[in-house]
Amino acid sequence: MPPPTDLFPHATGAALKTVEAHQEPQDLVFYSGWFCPFVQRSWIALEEKGIPYQYKEVNPYKKEKHFLDINPKGLVPAVEYQGKALYESLVLCEFFEDAYPTHKPSMLPEDAYTKAYARIWIDYVGKTFVPGFMRLLMAQETEKQDAALAELYEVLRRFSAQIKGPFFLGEHFSLVDIAIAPWITRDVIAAEHRGYSREDVGAEWKQYAEHVETRESVLRTKSNQDKYAQVYAPYLKDEAQSEAAKALRAGRAIP
Amino acid sequence: MPPPTDLFPHATGAALKTVEAHQEPQDLVFYSGWFCPFVQRSWIALEEKGIPYQYKEVNPYKKEKHFLDINPKGLVPAVEYQGKALYESLVLCEFFEDAYPTHKPSMLPEDAYTKAYARIWIDYVGKTFVPGFMRLLMAQETEKQDAALAELYEVLRRFSAQIKGPFFLGEHFSLVDIAIAPWITRDVIAAEHRGYSREDVGAEWKQYAEHVETRESVLRTKSNQDKYAQVYAPYLKDEAQSEAAKALRAGRAIP
Repeated sequence: MPPPTDLFPHATGAALKTVEAHQEPQDLVFYSGWFCPFVQRSWIALEEKGIPYQYKEVNPYKKEKHFLDINPKGLVPAVEYQGKALYESLVLCEFFEDAYPTHKPSMLPEDAYTKAYARIWIDYVGKTFVPGFMRLLMAQETEKQDAALAELYEVLRRFSAQIKGPFFLGEHFSLVDIAIAPWITRDVIAAEHRGYSREDVGAEWKQYAEHVETRESVLRTKSNQDKYAQVYAPYLKDEAQSEAAKALRAGRAIP
Repeated sequence: MPPPTDLFPHATGAALKTVEAHQEPQDLVFYSGWFCPFVQRSWIALEEKGIPYQYKEVNPYKKEKHFLDINPKGLVPAVEYQGKALYESLVLCEFFEDAYPTHKPSMLPEDAYTKAYARIWIDYVGKTFVPGFMRLLMAQETEKQDAALAELYEVLRRFSAQIKGPFFLGEHFSLVDIAIAPWITRDVIAAEHRGYSREDVGAEWKQYAEHVETRESVLRTKSNQDKYAQVYAPYLKDEAQSEAAKALRAGRAIP
Protein backbone atom coordinates (compact mmCIF):
# COMPACT_ATOMS: atom_id res chain seq x y z
CA MET A 1 0.00 0.00 0.00
CA PRO A 2 1.51 3.36 -0.97
CA PRO A 3 2.28 5.88 1.78
CA PRO A 4 -0.27 8.68 2.07
CA THR A 5 1.18 11.27 -0.28
CA ASP A 6 -1.16 13.94 1.01
CA LEU A 7 0.53 14.25 4.42
CA PHE A 8 0.53 17.96 5.19
CA PRO A 9 4.17 19.11 5.02
CA HIS A 10 4.49 21.21 8.17
CA ALA A 11 3.00 22.19 11.50
CA THR A 12 -0.01 24.52 11.61
CA GLY A 13 -1.70 26.73 14.18
CA ALA A 14 0.08 27.28 17.49
CA ALA A 15 2.68 24.62 16.67
CA LEU A 16 3.71 26.54 13.55
CA LYS A 17 4.44 29.63 15.65
CA THR A 18 6.63 27.49 17.92
CA VAL A 19 8.45 26.05 14.91
CA GLU A 20 9.07 29.53 13.52
CA ALA A 21 10.54 30.63 16.85
CA HIS A 22 13.07 27.75 16.75
CA GLN A 23 14.83 28.07 13.40
CA GLU A 24 18.19 29.39 14.61
CA PRO A 25 21.09 26.89 14.89
CA GLN A 26 21.53 25.48 18.41
CA ASP A 27 23.63 22.78 20.08
CA LEU A 28 20.54 20.60 20.11
CA VAL A 29 18.73 19.88 16.83
CA PHE A 30 15.24 18.44 17.26
CA TYR A 31 14.18 16.22 14.35
CA SER A 32 10.42 16.23 14.32
CA GLY A 33 7.26 15.24 12.54
CA TRP A 34 4.50 17.69 13.45
CA PHE A 35 1.85 14.94 13.17
CA CYS A 36 3.48 12.34 15.43
CA PRO A 37 2.27 11.93 19.02
CA PHE A 38 5.61 10.44 20.11
CA VAL A 39 7.34 13.54 18.76
CA GLN A 40 4.97 15.75 20.72
CA ARG A 41 6.08 14.12 23.98
CA SER A 42 9.70 15.19 23.52
CA TRP A 43 8.63 18.55 22.13
CA ILE A 44 6.50 19.29 25.20
CA ALA A 45 9.48 18.44 27.43
CA LEU A 46 11.75 20.82 25.50
CA GLU A 47 9.19 23.60 25.83
CA GLU A 48 8.54 22.93 29.55
CA LYS A 49 12.25 23.11 30.32
CA GLY A 50 13.05 26.05 28.05
CA ILE A 51 15.92 24.20 26.39
CA PRO A 52 17.29 26.01 23.32
CA TYR A 53 16.69 23.82 20.26
CA GLN A 54 16.57 24.09 16.50
CA TYR A 55 13.42 22.53 15.03
CA LYS A 56 13.77 20.49 11.83
CA GLU A 57 10.78 18.91 10.15
CA VAL A 58 11.57 15.48 8.69
CA ASN A 59 9.60 14.48 5.63
CA PRO A 60 9.02 10.78 6.36
CA TYR A 61 9.06 9.95 2.66
CA LYS A 62 12.10 12.04 1.74
CA LYS A 63 14.57 11.86 4.61
CA GLU A 64 17.71 14.00 4.29
CA LYS A 65 21.04 12.25 3.94
CA HIS A 66 22.57 13.91 7.03
CA PHE A 67 19.63 12.80 9.16
CA LEU A 68 19.93 9.19 7.97
CA ASP A 69 23.69 9.29 8.43
CA ILE A 70 23.41 10.01 12.13
CA ASN A 71 20.12 8.09 12.68
CA PRO A 72 20.04 5.15 10.24
CA LYS A 73 16.56 3.93 11.22
CA GLY A 74 15.29 7.42 10.39
CA LEU A 75 12.91 7.47 13.34
CA VAL A 76 11.47 10.67 14.79
CA PRO A 77 11.58 12.11 17.33
CA ALA A 78 15.36 12.28 17.34
CA VAL A 79 17.90 14.79 18.51
CA GLU A 80 21.34 15.60 17.27
CA TYR A 81 23.59 16.53 20.16
CA GLN A 82 27.30 17.13 19.69
CA GLY A 83 27.13 15.42 16.30
CA LYS A 84 25.49 12.26 17.60
CA ALA A 85 21.88 11.10 17.39
CA LEU A 86 19.50 9.90 20.08
CA TYR A 87 15.93 8.74 19.61
CA GLU A 88 12.93 7.16 21.46
CA SER A 89 10.50 9.75 22.81
CA LEU A 90 10.79 8.90 26.52
CA VAL A 91 14.54 8.30 26.40
CA LEU A 92 14.83 11.82 24.95
CA CYS A 93 12.72 13.25 27.78
CA GLU A 94 15.02 11.62 30.35
CA PHE A 95 18.04 12.83 28.37
CA PHE A 96 16.84 16.43 28.60
CA GLU A 97 16.81 16.03 32.42
CA ASP A 98 20.33 14.63 32.47
CA ALA A 99 21.93 16.90 29.86
CA TYR A 100 20.29 20.14 31.06
CA PRO A 101 20.23 19.81 34.87
CA THR A 102 20.02 23.58 35.37
CA HIS A 103 16.89 23.85 33.24
CA LYS A 104 14.05 23.64 35.73
CA PRO A 105 11.48 22.41 36.43
CA SER A 106 12.48 18.78 36.38
CA MET A 107 9.90 16.56 34.72
CA LEU A 108 10.58 13.80 37.26
CA PRO A 109 10.10 13.98 41.05
CA GLU A 110 13.18 14.44 43.24
CA ASP A 111 12.18 11.75 45.72
CA ALA A 112 13.39 8.28 44.68
CA TYR A 113 10.15 6.49 45.60
CA THR A 114 7.91 8.98 43.76
CA LYS A 115 10.25 8.94 40.77
CA ALA A 116 9.94 5.15 40.52
CA TYR A 117 6.17 5.40 41.03
CA ALA A 118 6.04 7.89 38.13
CA ARG A 119 8.08 5.52 35.95
CA ILE A 120 5.65 2.67 36.67
CA TRP A 121 2.82 4.78 35.27
CA ILE A 122 4.86 6.11 32.34
CA ASP A 123 5.51 2.47 31.48
CA TYR A 124 1.79 1.74 31.80
CA VAL A 125 0.90 4.52 29.36
CA GLY A 126 3.34 3.20 26.78
CA LYS A 127 2.64 -0.50 27.11
CA THR A 128 -1.08 -0.46 27.82
CA PHE A 129 -2.80 2.79 26.94
CA VAL A 130 -1.12 3.75 23.63
CA PRO A 131 -1.62 0.34 21.93
CA GLY A 132 -5.19 0.25 23.28
CA PHE A 133 -5.94 3.66 21.78
CA MET A 134 -4.51 2.62 18.41
CA ARG A 135 -6.35 -0.71 18.41
CA LEU A 136 -9.60 1.20 18.97
CA LEU A 137 -8.99 3.45 15.96
CA MET A 138 -7.87 0.55 13.77
CA ALA A 139 -10.79 -1.76 14.70
CA GLN A 140 -13.20 -2.17 11.77
CA GLU A 141 -16.10 -4.43 12.79
CA THR A 142 -18.61 -2.96 15.29
CA GLU A 143 -18.05 -5.87 17.65
CA LYS A 144 -14.29 -5.33 17.73
CA GLN A 145 -14.74 -1.57 18.14
CA ASP A 146 -17.04 -2.14 21.14
CA ALA A 147 -14.57 -4.54 22.75
CA ALA A 148 -11.65 -2.17 22.13
CA LEU A 149 -13.59 0.76 23.59
CA ALA A 150 -14.57 -1.19 26.71
CA GLU A 151 -10.95 -2.28 27.17
CA LEU A 152 -9.66 1.28 26.72
CA TYR A 153 -12.11 2.56 29.32
CA GLU A 154 -10.82 0.00 31.82
CA VAL A 155 -7.24 1.00 31.05
CA LEU A 156 -8.05 4.69 31.55
CA ARG A 157 -10.01 4.06 34.75
CA ARG A 158 -7.03 2.27 36.33
CA PHE A 159 -4.92 5.29 35.38
CA SER A 160 -7.57 7.77 36.57
CA ALA A 161 -7.81 6.10 39.97
CA GLN A 162 -4.21 7.26 40.58
CA ILE A 163 -4.63 10.90 39.48
CA LYS A 164 -3.96 13.27 42.38
CA GLY A 165 -5.06 16.34 40.40
CA PRO A 166 -4.75 18.69 38.74
CA PHE A 167 -1.96 16.59 37.22
CA PHE A 168 -1.14 12.93 37.71
CA LEU A 169 1.28 13.47 40.60
CA GLY A 170 -0.51 16.56 41.94
CA GLU A 171 0.54 20.17 41.34
CA HIS A 172 3.75 19.07 39.62
CA PHE A 173 3.35 18.64 35.82
CA SER A 174 5.53 15.61 35.13
CA LEU A 175 6.69 13.08 32.59
CA VAL A 176 3.60 10.98 33.36
CA ASP A 177 1.45 13.81 31.99
CA ILE A 178 3.81 14.30 29.05
CA ALA A 179 3.67 10.58 28.23
CA ILE A 180 -0.12 10.65 27.74
CA ALA A 181 -0.71 14.29 26.66
CA PRO A 182 -0.42 13.77 22.87
CA TRP A 183 -3.26 11.25 22.89
CA ILE A 184 -5.44 13.53 24.99
CA THR A 185 -4.79 16.15 22.31
CA ARG A 186 -5.97 13.62 19.71
CA ASP A 187 -8.78 11.81 21.52
CA VAL A 188 -11.41 13.78 19.62
CA ILE A 189 -10.69 11.37 16.73
CA ALA A 190 -11.87 8.48 18.93
CA ALA A 191 -14.85 10.55 20.06
CA GLU A 192 -15.93 11.38 16.51
CA HIS A 193 -15.43 7.92 15.01
CA ARG A 194 -15.49 5.30 17.76
CA GLY A 195 -18.04 6.47 20.33
CA TYR A 196 -15.39 7.36 22.94
CA SER A 197 -16.31 9.97 25.51
CA ARG A 198 -14.15 11.37 28.31
CA GLU A 199 -17.21 11.53 30.54
CA ASP A 200 -17.87 7.83 30.04
CA VAL A 201 -14.39 7.07 31.38
CA GLY A 202 -15.19 9.11 34.47
CA ALA A 203 -15.24 12.60 35.98
CA GLU A 204 -11.59 12.39 37.14
CA TRP A 205 -10.41 11.56 33.65
CA LYS A 206 -12.46 14.35 32.04
CA GLN A 207 -11.11 16.93 34.45
CA TYR A 208 -7.53 15.66 34.15
CA ALA A 209 -7.72 15.65 30.33
CA GLU A 210 -8.85 19.29 30.39
CA HIS A 211 -5.96 20.29 32.65
CA VAL A 212 -3.44 18.53 30.43
CA GLU A 213 -4.76 19.71 27.07
CA THR A 214 -4.75 23.35 28.19
CA ARG A 215 -1.20 23.25 29.56
CA GLU A 216 0.78 25.91 27.70
CA SER A 217 3.49 23.53 26.47
CA VAL A 218 0.83 21.17 25.13
CA LEU A 219 -1.00 23.98 23.34
CA ARG A 220 2.25 25.35 21.90
CA THR A 221 3.04 22.01 20.23
CA LYS A 222 -0.43 21.40 18.83
CA SER A 223 -1.35 21.70 15.17
CA ASN A 224 -4.82 22.40 13.82
CA GLN A 225 -7.38 19.68 14.44
CA ASP A 226 -8.32 19.25 10.77
CA LYS A 227 -4.69 18.34 10.01
CA TYR A 228 -4.67 15.62 12.70
CA ALA A 229 -7.94 14.32 11.22
CA GLN A 230 -6.17 13.85 7.86
CA VAL A 231 -3.36 11.90 9.54
CA TYR A 232 -5.79 9.56 11.29
CA ALA A 233 -7.99 8.83 8.26
CA PRO A 234 -5.88 5.78 7.20
CA TYR A 235 -5.86 4.44 10.78
CA LEU A 236 -9.64 4.55 10.87
CA LYS A 237 -9.73 2.41 7.71
CA ASP A 238 -6.94 0.17 9.10
CA GLU A 239 -4.74 1.18 6.17
CA ALA A 240 -2.05 3.05 8.14
CA GLN A 241 1.52 2.05 7.27
CA SER A 242 3.39 3.60 10.21
CA GLU A 243 5.79 1.32 12.09
CA ALA A 244 3.43 1.44 15.07
CA ALA A 245 0.39 0.43 12.99
CA LYS A 246 2.26 -2.41 11.29
CA ALA A 247 3.55 -3.71 14.63
CA LEU A 248 0.09 -3.72 16.20
CA ARG A 249 -1.40 -5.49 13.19
CA ALA A 250 1.28 -8.20 13.54
CA GLY A 251 0.62 -8.57 17.26
CA ARG A 252 3.96 -7.00 18.18
CA ALA A 253 4.98 -4.30 20.62
CA ILE A 254 5.14 -0.78 19.16
CA PRO A 255 8.85 -0.31 18.35
CA MET B 1 -5.51 -24.65 32.13
CA PRO B 2 -4.37 -25.26 35.72
CA PRO B 3 -1.12 -23.63 36.85
CA PRO B 4 1.84 -26.00 36.99
CA THR B 5 1.63 -27.34 40.53
CA ASP B 6 5.10 -28.82 40.34
CA LEU B 7 6.91 -25.46 40.37
CA PHE B 8 9.94 -25.98 42.58
CA PRO B 9 9.34 -23.94 45.75
CA HIS B 10 12.68 -22.20 46.18
CA ALA B 11 16.01 -21.23 44.67
CA THR B 12 18.73 -23.86 44.28
CA GLY B 13 22.48 -23.92 43.73
CA ALA B 14 24.36 -20.64 44.03
CA ALA B 15 21.10 -18.65 44.19
CA LEU B 16 20.04 -20.60 47.30
CA LYS B 17 23.23 -19.54 49.07
CA THR B 18 22.47 -15.92 48.20
CA VAL B 19 18.92 -16.31 49.50
CA GLU B 20 20.20 -17.79 52.76
CA ALA B 21 22.57 -14.86 53.21
CA HIS B 22 19.65 -12.38 52.93
CA GLN B 23 17.11 -13.52 55.52
CA GLU B 24 17.63 -10.77 58.12
CA PRO B 25 15.07 -7.93 58.18
CA GLN B 26 16.20 -4.85 56.22
CA ASP B 27 14.69 -1.52 55.15
CA LEU B 28 14.30 -2.98 51.68
CA VAL B 29 12.35 -6.23 51.22
CA PHE B 30 12.84 -7.93 47.86
CA TYR B 31 9.85 -10.00 46.76
CA SER B 32 11.14 -12.58 44.38
CA GLY B 33 10.42 -15.67 42.36
CA TRP B 34 13.66 -17.62 41.90
CA PHE B 35 12.52 -18.85 38.45
CA CYS B 36 11.62 -15.48 36.92
CA PRO B 37 14.05 -13.78 34.52
CA PHE B 38 12.57 -10.34 35.24
CA VAL B 39 13.23 -10.93 38.96
CA GLN B 40 16.81 -11.86 38.19
CA ARG B 41 17.40 -8.44 36.60
CA SER B 42 16.57 -6.59 39.81
CA TRP B 43 18.35 -9.20 41.90
CA ILE B 44 21.57 -8.78 39.90
CA ALA B 45 21.37 -5.00 40.41
CA LEU B 46 20.97 -5.43 44.19
CA GLU B 47 23.98 -7.75 44.27
CA GLU B 48 26.11 -5.49 42.05
CA LYS B 49 25.45 -2.49 44.25
CA GLY B 50 25.73 -4.30 47.59
CA ILE B 51 22.40 -2.93 48.80
CA PRO B 52 21.19 -4.56 52.04
CA TYR B 53 17.96 -6.43 51.31
CA GLN B 54 15.77 -9.12 52.80
CA TYR B 55 14.85 -11.83 50.28
CA LYS B 56 11.30 -13.17 50.31
CA GLU B 57 10.18 -15.90 47.96
CA VAL B 58 6.63 -15.37 46.70
CA ASN B 59 4.67 -18.50 45.92
CA PRO B 60 2.80 -17.36 42.80
CA TYR B 61 -0.15 -19.61 43.62
CA LYS B 62 -0.39 -18.72 47.33
CA LYS B 63 0.47 -15.06 47.74
CA GLU B 64 0.66 -13.72 51.29
CA LYS B 65 -1.94 -11.17 52.37
CA HIS B 66 0.65 -8.53 53.32
CA PHE B 67 2.27 -8.79 49.89
CA LEU B 68 -1.07 -8.37 48.10
CA ASP B 69 -2.03 -5.50 50.43
CA ILE B 70 0.96 -3.42 49.34
CA ASN B 71 1.14 -4.77 45.75
CA PRO B 72 -2.41 -5.63 44.61
CA LYS B 73 -1.41 -7.02 41.20
CA GLY B 74 0.90 -9.40 43.04
CA LEU B 75 3.64 -9.07 40.45
CA VAL B 76 7.26 -9.98 41.13
CA PRO B 77 9.84 -8.59 41.24
CA ALA B 78 8.64 -6.06 43.78
CA VAL B 79 10.23 -4.22 46.65
CA GLU B 80 8.78 -2.96 49.86
CA TYR B 81 10.49 0.27 50.86
CA GLN B 82 9.30 2.33 53.81
CA GLY B 83 6.03 0.40 53.81
CA LYS B 84 5.25 1.05 50.15
CA ALA B 85 5.59 -1.22 47.13
CA LEU B 86 7.32 -0.71 43.81
CA TYR B 87 7.46 -3.12 40.88
CA GLU B 88 8.62 -3.51 37.25
CA SER B 89 12.11 -4.97 36.92
CA LEU B 90 13.79 -2.04 35.17
CA VAL B 91 11.99 0.60 37.21
CA LEU B 92 13.38 -1.16 40.29
CA CYS B 93 16.91 -1.10 38.86
CA GLU B 94 16.63 2.67 38.29
CA PHE B 95 15.13 3.05 41.77
CA PHE B 96 18.17 1.38 43.33
CA GLU B 97 20.34 4.03 41.64
CA ASP B 98 18.19 6.88 42.94
CA ALA B 99 17.54 5.58 46.46
CA TYR B 100 21.09 4.35 47.14
CA PRO B 101 23.30 6.95 45.47
CA THR B 102 26.29 6.10 47.67
CA HIS B 103 26.21 2.44 46.65
CA LYS B 104 28.66 2.23 43.77
CA PRO B 105 29.15 1.29 41.03
CA SER B 106 26.29 2.98 39.26
CA MET B 107 24.61 0.72 36.73
CA LEU B 108 24.09 3.68 34.36
CA PRO B 109 26.81 5.84 32.78
CA GLU B 110 27.44 9.28 34.26
CA ASP B 111 27.55 11.02 30.89
CA ALA B 112 24.09 12.14 29.69
CA TYR B 113 24.58 11.03 26.09
CA THR B 114 25.88 7.58 27.01
CA LYS B 115 23.13 7.16 29.58
CA ALA B 116 20.49 7.86 26.91
CA TYR B 117 22.30 5.54 24.48
CA ALA B 118 22.20 2.81 27.17
CA ARG B 119 18.47 3.41 27.67
CA ILE B 120 17.82 3.02 23.92
CA TRP B 121 19.37 -0.45 24.06
CA ILE B 122 17.70 -1.41 27.34
CA ASP B 123 14.42 -0.52 25.63
CA TYR B 124 15.43 -2.64 22.63
CA VAL B 125 16.09 -5.66 24.84
CA GLY B 126 12.69 -5.37 26.48
CA LYS B 127 10.60 -4.60 23.42
CA THR B 128 12.37 -6.66 20.78
CA PHE B 129 14.65 -9.34 22.20
CA VAL B 130 12.60 -10.69 25.13
CA PRO B 131 9.35 -11.21 23.16
CA GLY B 132 11.39 -12.71 20.32
CA PHE B 133 13.04 -15.21 22.68
CA MET B 134 9.68 -16.20 24.15
CA ARG B 135 8.05 -16.52 20.73
CA LEU B 136 10.84 -18.90 19.72
CA LEU B 137 10.25 -21.15 22.73
CA MET B 138 6.46 -21.05 22.32
CA ALA B 139 6.51 -21.76 18.55
CA GLN B 140 5.18 -25.26 17.80
CA GLU B 141 5.29 -25.93 14.04
CA THR B 142 8.76 -26.36 12.50
CA GLU B 143 8.11 -23.56 10.03
CA LYS B 144 7.22 -21.10 12.79
CA GLN B 145 10.21 -22.19 14.85
CA ASP B 146 12.53 -21.57 11.90
CA ALA B 147 11.06 -18.14 11.27
CA ALA B 148 11.27 -17.23 14.98
CA LEU B 149 14.89 -18.39 15.16
CA ALA B 150 15.89 -16.40 12.07
CA GLU B 151 14.18 -13.32 13.48
CA LEU B 152 15.88 -13.75 16.88
CA TYR B 153 19.28 -14.03 15.20
CA GLU B 154 18.66 -10.75 13.38
CA VAL B 155 17.61 -9.09 16.63
CA LEU B 156 20.73 -10.34 18.40
CA ARG B 157 23.02 -9.36 15.54
CA ARG B 158 21.77 -5.77 15.68
CA PHE B 159 22.50 -5.82 19.41
CA SER B 160 25.88 -7.51 18.93
CA ALA B 161 27.00 -4.91 16.40
CA GLN B 162 26.92 -2.36 19.26
CA ILE B 163 28.84 -4.41 21.85
CA LYS B 164 32.10 -2.67 22.81
CA GLY B 165 33.33 -5.60 24.89
CA PRO B 166 33.77 -7.20 27.26
CA PHE B 167 30.37 -5.71 28.21
CA PHE B 168 27.89 -3.79 26.11
CA LEU B 169 29.27 -0.36 26.96
CA GLY B 170 32.85 -1.52 27.39
CA GLU B 171 34.58 -2.23 30.71
CA HIS B 172 31.61 -0.89 32.67
CA PHE B 173 29.03 -3.61 33.50
CA SER B 174 25.74 -1.72 33.13
CA LEU B 175 21.99 -1.92 33.10
CA VAL B 176 22.11 -2.94 29.43
CA ASP B 177 23.93 -6.13 30.47
CA ILE B 178 21.55 -6.64 33.39
CA ALA B 179 18.54 -6.24 31.11
CA ILE B 180 19.60 -9.17 28.91
CA ALA B 181 21.60 -11.34 31.38
CA PRO B 182 18.72 -13.54 32.62
CA TRP B 183 18.00 -14.74 29.10
CA ILE B 184 21.65 -15.47 28.45
CA THR B 185 21.52 -17.58 31.61
CA ARG B 186 18.53 -19.42 30.11
CA ASP B 187 19.43 -19.61 26.43
CA VAL B 188 20.49 -23.24 26.78
CA ILE B 189 16.74 -24.02 26.69
CA ALA B 190 16.58 -22.54 23.19
CA ALA B 191 19.77 -24.40 22.24
CA GLU B 192 18.43 -27.76 23.42
CA HIS B 193 14.94 -27.44 21.98
CA ARG B 194 14.93 -24.90 19.15
CA GLY B 195 18.27 -25.24 17.38
CA TYR B 196 19.62 -21.93 18.70
CA SER B 197 23.37 -21.54 18.90
CA ARG B 198 25.36 -18.59 20.19
CA GLU B 199 27.97 -19.22 17.50
CA ASP B 200 25.36 -18.97 14.77
CA VAL B 201 24.48 -15.47 16.01
CA GLY B 202 28.13 -14.52 15.72
CA ALA B 203 31.49 -14.51 17.50
CA GLU B 204 30.82 -11.17 19.26
CA TRP B 205 27.59 -12.49 20.74
CA LYS B 206 29.18 -15.76 21.90
CA GLN B 207 32.02 -13.93 23.62
CA TYR B 208 29.72 -11.34 25.16
CA ALA B 209 27.34 -14.03 26.45
CA GLU B 210 30.25 -15.79 28.14
CA HIS B 211 31.37 -12.57 29.84
CA VAL B 212 27.87 -11.84 31.09
CA GLU B 213 26.99 -15.34 32.29
CA THR B 214 30.19 -15.61 34.32
CA ARG B 215 29.77 -12.24 36.02
CA GLU B 216 29.70 -12.89 39.76
CA SER B 217 26.33 -11.19 40.35
CA VAL B 218 24.79 -13.25 37.55
CA LEU B 219 26.20 -16.50 38.93
CA ARG B 220 25.09 -15.65 42.47
CA THR B 221 21.45 -15.27 41.36
CA LYS B 222 21.36 -18.43 39.24
CA SER B 223 19.54 -21.60 40.20
CA ASN B 224 20.36 -25.08 38.95
CA GLN B 225 19.79 -25.65 35.25
CA ASP B 226 17.46 -28.63 35.72
CA LYS B 227 15.11 -26.41 37.72
CA TYR B 228 14.96 -23.83 34.91
CA ALA B 229 14.25 -26.69 32.49
CA GLN B 230 11.17 -27.61 34.54
CA VAL B 231 9.93 -24.01 34.40
CA TYR B 232 10.30 -23.83 30.62
CA ALA B 233 8.62 -27.17 29.83
CA PRO B 234 5.12 -25.60 29.53
CA TYR B 235 6.51 -22.80 27.33
CA LEU B 236 7.96 -25.34 24.94
CA LYS B 237 4.49 -26.93 24.61
CA ASP B 238 2.89 -23.46 24.37
CA GLU B 239 0.94 -24.20 27.54
CA ALA B 240 2.54 -21.56 29.79
CA GLN B 241 0.05 -19.43 31.70
CA SER B 242 2.32 -16.62 32.88
CA GLU B 243 1.14 -13.06 32.20
CA ALA B 244 3.94 -12.70 29.66
CA ALA B 245 2.98 -15.89 27.80
CA LYS B 246 -0.70 -14.96 27.72
CA ALA B 247 0.10 -11.46 26.44
CA LEU B 248 2.30 -12.78 23.63
CA ARG B 249 -0.33 -15.32 22.59
CA ALA B 250 -2.89 -12.49 22.39
CA GLY B 251 -0.52 -10.34 20.31
CA ARG B 252 -0.03 -7.87 23.15
CA ALA B 253 3.02 -6.28 24.74
CA ILE B 254 4.44 -8.13 27.76
CA PRO B 255 2.95 -6.29 30.76
